Amino acid sequence: MSGSSPIFLPKGFKFSAVTAGIKASGKPDLALILAEPGTAAAALFTKNRVVAAPVDIGRASMARTGGRVRAVIVNSGNANCATGAAGVRDCKRICSETAQLLKARPYEVFPSSTGIIGVPFPTAKISARLKPLLDSAGSSSEHLRRFADAIVTTDTRAKLASIPLRSGKGAVTGVAKGSGMIHPQLATMLVYLLTDVIATPAELRSALRNACNETFNAISVDGDTSTNDTVLLLASGQSRIKLQTVRKEFDKALLGVCRSLANQIVADGEGVQHVIHLYIEQAKNRDEALQVARAISHSLLVKTAWAGADPNWGRILAAVGRSGIPVDPKKISILIGDQLVCRNAIAWRFEERRAHRELSKAECSVTVRLGRGNASLEFVTSDLTSEYVKINADYST
Amino acid sequence: MSGSSPIFLPKGFKFSAVTAGIKASGKPDLALILAEPGTAAAALFTKNRVVAAPVDIGRASMARTGGRVRAVIVNSGNANCATGAAGVRDCKRICSETAQLLKARPYEVFPSSTGIIGVPFPTAKISARLKPLLDSAGSSSEHLRRFADAIVTTDTRAKLASIPLRSGKGAVTGVAKGSGMIHPQLATMLVYLLTDVIATPAELRSALRNACNETFNAISVDGDTSTNDTVLLLASGQSRIKLQTVRKEFDKALLGVCRSLANQIVADGEGVQHVIHLYIEQAKNRDEALQVARAISHSLLVKTAWAGADPNWGRILAAVGRSGIPVDPKKISILIGDQLVCRNAIAWRFEERRAHRELSKAECSVTVRLGRGNASLEFVTSDLTSEYVKINADYST
Repeated sequence: MSGSSPIFLPKGFKFSAVTAGIKASGKPDLALILAEPGTAAAALFTKNRVVAAPVDIGRASMARTGGRVRAVIVNSGNANCATGAAGVRDCKRICSETAQLLKARPYEVFPSSTGIIGVPFPTAKISARLKPLLDSAGSSSEHLRRFADAIVTTDTRAKLASIPLRSGKGAVTGVAKGSGMIHPQLATMLVYLLTDVIATPAELRSALRNACNETFNAISVDGDTSTNDTVLLLASGQSRIKLQTVRKEFDKALLGVCRSLANQIVADGEGVQHVIHLYIEQAKNRDEALQVARAISHSLLVKTAWAGADPNWGRILAAVGRSGIPVDPKKISILIGDQLVCRNAIAWRFEERRAHRELSKAECSVTVRLGRGNASLEFVTSDLTSEYVKINADYST
Repeated sequence: MSGSSPIFLPKGFKFSAVTAGIKASGKPDLALILAEPGTAAAALFTKNRVVAAPVDIGRASMARTGGRVRAVIVNSGNANCATGAAGVRDCKRICSETAQLLKARPYEVFPSSTGIIGVPFPTAKISARLKPLLDSAGSSSEHLRRFADAIVTTDTRAKLASIPLRSGKGAVTGVAKGSGMIHPQLATMLVYLLTDVIATPAELRSALRNACNETFNAISVDGDTSTNDTVLLLASGQSRIKLQTVRKEFDKALLGVCRSLANQIVADGEGVQHVIHLYIEQAKNRDEALQVARAISHSLLVKTAWAGADPNWGRILAAVGRSGIPVDPKKISILIGDQLVCRNAIAWRFEERRAHRELSKAECSVTVRLGRGNASLEFVTSDLTSEYVKINADYST
């Protein structure tokens, strides 16, 4: 599902975006979601020990409210990370000022920031634009798209996904940003998931954790985990459908939205030419499959081979060998697309052109069979191109 | 010490190289070291679980002889890895044929291979050139240089280092190859260290392990560990100096030679523009310093920032945060060259131009202080450039 697919708008939310002058480009960089009173929330954050001010404050606010959110305020262009006590104070100030305009409490305003690390937070610029931001909020899909556009940094496109519940009586809709520092355990990734079912924060937490493990925690662009990663799920209750009564359908829709957004993030990864669906099969358990998937997807040699659509399976085999899992090389097989290229760790007679063609596609698949058990995993990753290097070799200078 | 520095030749060794037609370039690709009978040996191998045939056979031969080597036979252009039973048989055959010509035992011939993985081993080509290879062996430094030139793959230059013992009565001299898949725990790296002291294999093993931990296990170009890594130390005993009597001097010379070769390997890393000496200070112990050094040196975002000589210390801080060490961000400081750029995880007012100038140098230093203890470590790593991607995006195709 791409940004141009139909959007089913969950009831009870409004959106807005303005230009605060944080980004040098002059594009919109301050965005808002307004939620009805009583909206339940659950959030997951980066596992990096170095976290940005909004992550600290968002986490504390969620604990204080027990999972209630009235507004989400997001800026792009500055991560408010490594900004010390001043960064925390500034973030709190923006939450307070937003709350005042809304007549809500400061800790009901959930903050997010994304952009450069270590640069003082542009509080005055943001503060000056809060009123117009709130005044221009609306509930149309055009408003939602404006929000999605304003939260991007190096992304080349906005990321949206939407799945209706029970023929339009409710919906799960998500917006995400992220294209570098993308790595399991969350990444420079901000994801806002909205639904109008009636749910408790505890129900949302459990649903969110499950969906994230299958999707955002099983993708990798560059192996770097950001300091600002946040996934927030909000349930307005305005559809009057109870989550419990549509549990299966809801979980499926949430997973579908998360999967679509995760794929969109990898596909829009910095410099990415090829999205690789990496299937790890015959692992003893899911954790070891994940460990192997990460070793492969973080190997520069594998990623650069993929950039050249090069069926160099030896590099994949070498990455599996150093993954830390006690594999028996003689039991390892590798497929490119549906073609066996390595069997029992030995070159299998295969059509090299066909393998090259498979890897030349925008989305392709690579399967690694470990011969150790019955667990399997789909991991979504990307190639590494000169373009990635160019994008990241001069970000701040 | 570079390839053009004076070479002190340990007594008791001869060298040779020929073209066997394995490399498409037509450059020499088959090389030999001949050692006097009674030469003691110690070896370290890759920790990758997928290993090439010569690693399996070299390890078994060392076990069988208890550390005795009469010849080292090395080919470049083919790794003899993922070649199954045929690869093992072929490697044994080359060792046997070499041994026959030398009137030695097959397991006294130590094999190494480097090059592409998964391509059948070119046994016939090598076999046909063994006699001319042995016939042309000589003990001059010119012969040693020919050996050094023949073992390279994507290296842009040969790597030699040499330190005399007690004003010329003995020497430690090393030859290495390696420029990609360079990572702690050895890499696509072949290193041959030669000395003429009298030593037991056990004495050599202990000396080699210590020197390697400080040097080859503390470097990284791309974080990939190869299937073929080998470091071999040979002691001919021909100088008539006992290792025990010059222990300190020997250890220092061995460390010096290993350090020089390790630095040369990183400096010649694929596409490398900048060698970064990464100092991790105030760690609790050496292992945790190493873990932090690896997290930083494997971060694509850090490595690409270095390619742009970009003093983006926020990326370094984020890498420390996800290293797995329970750091307290508030205690972390970062220096570029001798300039403080981040103190207690907050931007420190620093001269950006000066930091940029430091990072623009061919060799520069970055220091990370963790505020956890007194252990420190020097780790040698590199930037990641578009050139690396180009080199590796079409290796086999």
